[in-house]
Amino acid sequence: MNPVDGAGERYVVGVDFGTLSGRALVVRVGDGAELGTAVHEYGDGVISTALPGGRPLPPDWALQNPQDYRDVLRYAVPAAVSAAGVDPAAIVGIGIDFTACTVLPTFADGTPLCEAPELCDRPHSWVKLWKHHAAQPHADRINALAHERAEPWIGRYGGKISAEWQFAKGLQILEEDPEVYHRAERFIEAADWIVWQLSGTETRNVCTAGYKGIRQDGRYPAQSFLTALNPDFGDFVAKLDGPLLPLGARAGTLTARAAAWTGLPEGIAVAAGNVDAHVTAASAQAVEPGRLVAIMGTSTCHVVNSPHLAEVAGMCGVVDGGISAGAWGYEAGQSGVGDIFGWFVEHAAPAGVASHEHLTELAASQPVGAHGLVALDWWNGNRSLLVNHDLSGMIVGMTLATRPQDVYRALLESTAYGTRMIIEAFVEAGVAVNDLVIAGGLASNELLMQIYADVTNRPLNIIGSAQGPALGSAIHAAVAAGEYPSIHEASQAMGRVHEAVYRPDPERARAYDALYAEYRRLHDHFGRGGNDVMLRLRAIRNAAVGAGAATPETALEVVA
Amino acid sequence: MNPVDGAGERYVVGVDFGTLSGRALVVRVGDGAELGTAVHEYGDGVISTALPGGRPLPPDWALQNPQDYRDVLRYAVPAAVSAAGVDPAAIVGIGIDFTACTVLPTFADGTPLCEAPELCDRPHSWVKLWKHHAAQPHADRINALAHERAEPWIGRYGGKISAEWQFAKGLQILEEDPEVYHRAERFIEAADWIVWQLSGTETRNVCTAGYKGIRQDGRYPAQSFLTALNPDFGDFVAKLDGPLLPLGARAGTLTARAAAWTGLPEGIAVAAGNVDAHVTAASAQAVEPGRLVAIMGTSTCHVVNSPHLAEVAGMCGVVDGGISAGAWGYEAGQSGVGDIFGWFVEHAAPAGVASHEHLTELAASQPVGAHGLVALDWWNGNRSLLVNHDLSGMIVGMTLATRPQDVYRALLESTAYGTRMIIEAFVEAGVAVNDLVIAGGLASNELLMQIYADVTNRPLNIIGSAQGPALGSAIHAAVAAGEYPSIHEASQAMGRVHEAVYRPDPERARAYDALYAEYRRLHDHFGRGGNDVMLRLRAIRNAAVGAGAATPETALEVVA
Repeated sequence: MNPVDGAGERYVVGVDFGTLSGRALVVRVGDGAELGTAVHEYGDGVISTALPGGRPLPPDWALQNPQDYRDVLRYAVPAAVSAAGVDPAAIVGIGIDFTACTVLPTFADGTPLCEAPELCDRPHSWVKLWKHHAAQPHADRINALAHERAEPWIGRYGGKISAEWQFAKGLQILEEDPEVYHRAERFIEAADWIVWQLSGTETRNVCTAGYKGIRQDGRYPAQSFLTALNPDFGDFVAKLDGPLLPLGARAGTLTARAAAWTGLPEGIAVAAGNVDAHVTAASAQAVEPGRLVAIMGTSTCHVVNSPHLAEVAGMCGVVDGGISAGAWGYEAGQSGVGDIFGWFVEHAAPAGVASHEHLTELAASQPVGAHGLVALDWWNGNRSLLVNHDLSGMIVGMTLATRPQDVYRALLESTAYGTRMIIEAFVEAGVAVNDLVIAGGLASNELLMQIYADVTNRPLNIIGSAQGPALGSAIHAAVAAGEYPSIHEASQAMGRVHEAVYRPDPERARAYDALYAEYRRLHDHFGRGGNDVMLRLRAIRNAAVGAGAATPETALEVVA
Repeated sequence: MNPVDGAGERYVVGVDFGTLSGRALVVRVGDGAELGTAVHEYGDGVISTALPGGRPLPPDWALQNPQDYRDVLRYAVPAAVSAAGVDPAAIVGIGIDFTACTVLPTFADGTPLCEAPELCDRPHSWVKLWKHHAAQPHADRINALAHERAEPWIGRYGGKISAEWQFAKGLQILEEDPEVYHRAERFIEAADWIVWQLSGTETRNVCTAGYKGIRQDGRYPAQSFLTALNPDFGDFVAKLDGPLLPLGARAGTLTARAAAWTGLPEGIAVAAGNVDAHVTAASAQAVEPGRLVAIMGTSTCHVVNSPHLAEVAGMCGVVDGGISAGAWGYEAGQSGVGDIFGWFVEHAAPAGVASHEHLTELAASQPVGAHGLVALDWWNGNRSLLVNHDLSGMIVGMTLATRPQDVYRALLESTAYGTRMIIEAFVEAGVAVNDLVIAGGLASNELLMQIYADVTNRPLNIIGSAQGPALGSAIHAAVAAGEYPSIHEASQAMGRVHEAVYRPDPERARAYDALYAEYRRLHDHFGRGGNDVMLRLRAIRNAAVGAGAATPETALEVVA
């Protein structure tokens, strides 16, 4: 027992698997105090240009190495426990969250296909990271067929499933590398796969199954739907299906092997897997309806609970219990946010101002509208409301007097307009959004936060933890360990939020109304068929670089 | 007599007054050989933020100091003669060309109003440089009234006169500073003013009177038209009118005062004034119909002769004898070209690639379309075909993979698409454009030239002189001195062109057809009323920076 704490204090570990690294956090069960944390960077990071063995990849691919995830358990968890200075014996549970949809094919025992020597040089045997965007044609076909057949589930996803999700990625594997598809006995979210690695038990969680796996009202899409896509796709659900757990449930207990990796006691509770964004609602004390959590980093994910079921065009999804049991959880997203600001600093800012700090300082003093610019924030496609990864960025209004800080501010604003589009779509569909809680790395950018408050004309609350997802996973671990009866109680005791840190300024909010109207008009013109120039430019680009071949097999051959 | 040359060799001097400096060139009459040149930078350059006395200027203003022009005569001309090593006594004539419409108010004796001590702190007393763009509202009213009254001349200017021209600038003076307007006894193109300084005689030339002064079929706009614009504007033509000279005519002879400035013999021929772009047709051996001269620098001016009169929507103008006697001279233009590339290098290129050379090297190896981008080249407004300086730049197609060389190449291409729009408008109206002659500083950019050949699908000839306008002025001086019977003969003897230096590649030309179609669609959407977002953003910007006041007087007060 750690002498610093009172006798009987208990702890939980939350592990957040991000895009480039995994973070472990040791948290006190009683009050959510964060006692120690450690990060492990993935050795292979994002695999986007060539496999570790050297085989080149086509554009829009993004893979990962599952061994990097195990290494987070082996290095970050013991380091966090050590940093916390607590007795490992007082740790009663572990919970994890993951990027999603990040998904991999495995054999029946959970071994990833990419770890089989005969398959490791096959791109489709690796983990497909959430931002693998090469399955857009497959998503397009899924959506077209779903509307043609009037599938009841398509409305739950705003009318479009994403190219990032399980069925699009699975169909891409089948059609581009049938052998890998057929050898994959299981096809599993990385969130559930790491829980399997921890507990020795294969489970699925309602959150990823609902948001990323098209599981609605207790069912996946019908076999007849899948075989209509491709006669060989009918067995896909069999590769996905398994015991389905609500969030906060105990998936199993820590195995001896995983105890050895982590230094945690064998037999402690392992919580059902979760998604980084959704789990943050718990740490931000935002499981109540009407409080939208925006997790803002390289991309932004929005989650909000509502007592009502509504079908909102262009949202990512609505899932019963998808954020917490007893409410309909809504998800939306923006696929490029901090990524766009980073792109600007790295690739479009001249020497002398090429830092976020300098550009922010120069941009902050401008009156609203003084730069004369409006941008569409689609550098990484559009996840909501248009759900099309082939859309791209646009900026209008440049003159010879335009300066780097002008464009930088316009890019910040463009992402705020994107968030407002999402909020308005929710509100119009009857899903209340009264205020926002901002989590993630961008919450510390004061100019950006004030712009969001002014553009959305809503108060901004800021999460009280720098490790929102990991804290949320720890909260889920506490529930799985039986320390709290539900996520709701655990969130109240262990979560933290600073209320109304940024309030909208009425004059700036009015000025932004005019600019937002321009954004909205451009959004609809370029995103809803007025001019599909972005899609054509993408096709021309792909053809020009030789990656736009007619069949996916050819596309792979071109770069092989 | 210079011993290097044979006895009886005669010489002429051409002086080219540009945006930032003036250049003198000494040329041999017999063959156009360029023997010596010198440049004088204007001391006050472009006056755009504050008068030399300190008074701030509103946005979009661009003024100059007429003393800078006299200093070109005093410093550049003697230096060029000295560099040429010729006997000044063998110099038989001087010709000049100027940016246009660059225009100034003077007293009856030619003294600029800005040189009167009581007026020198009044912005409207100074020379208005061609790129003074603050008279757009006045141009808009002139155009609206011209169409309302079905004025016969408006079709000669493509349906729109420019905010850069004499009547718009004059009306702005009247309405923003009536005292300056009323004290101006003369209102004169800088080209004609410098000829007045040289010869002591006030003249006007058909070129600027036609292209910049709305003089058509022997008349300026009717007094009833002017008083309908403003009751006090009826005397404007009286300030403009004067003896009108064809190009190549002798305006007078060099005065003793100007002989003292320049070191040239008193009494030699002074040619009628000309415009830098139009005079280049003579030095490029391009006074024959069907050969379009594009003078490419910070902006581009296009001139082409045709035996037929046609009214081409959106062109700058058509003037009988406007390029050379006996043909209809057509002018079009792009108000930002090299300026845009310079803007990119200075304000949008990261360290490491921030040079034209480096960006060109990286951009040159790309297949057509590989960057996935299309831009509208309106950073400095659009002179042809839309004739609106409140339009602005746009770029579409950016992704997180977009690199600086991609944007740079897209900007080069956008200006080529703009040129193709102009060529197609000419051809559709029956004005043949068989090939292009490129003059100006950008002619040495090989990547840009090949892009222009591929985009326009026409061979590119390159002028054989680095000093096209000054050589052209020297050719006009030779005609004014009676050395040749016409510009045509003088051009054949003294001009130079390299034929078909760049030829279009059929495959690249086809690939550009698809991208040009996208440009054209965006051009019409943003430029022809589909979405006037650029105009609204300009108005929002002006209001936000406090310069968008309701009346011009207020606009001046705001910054005073």
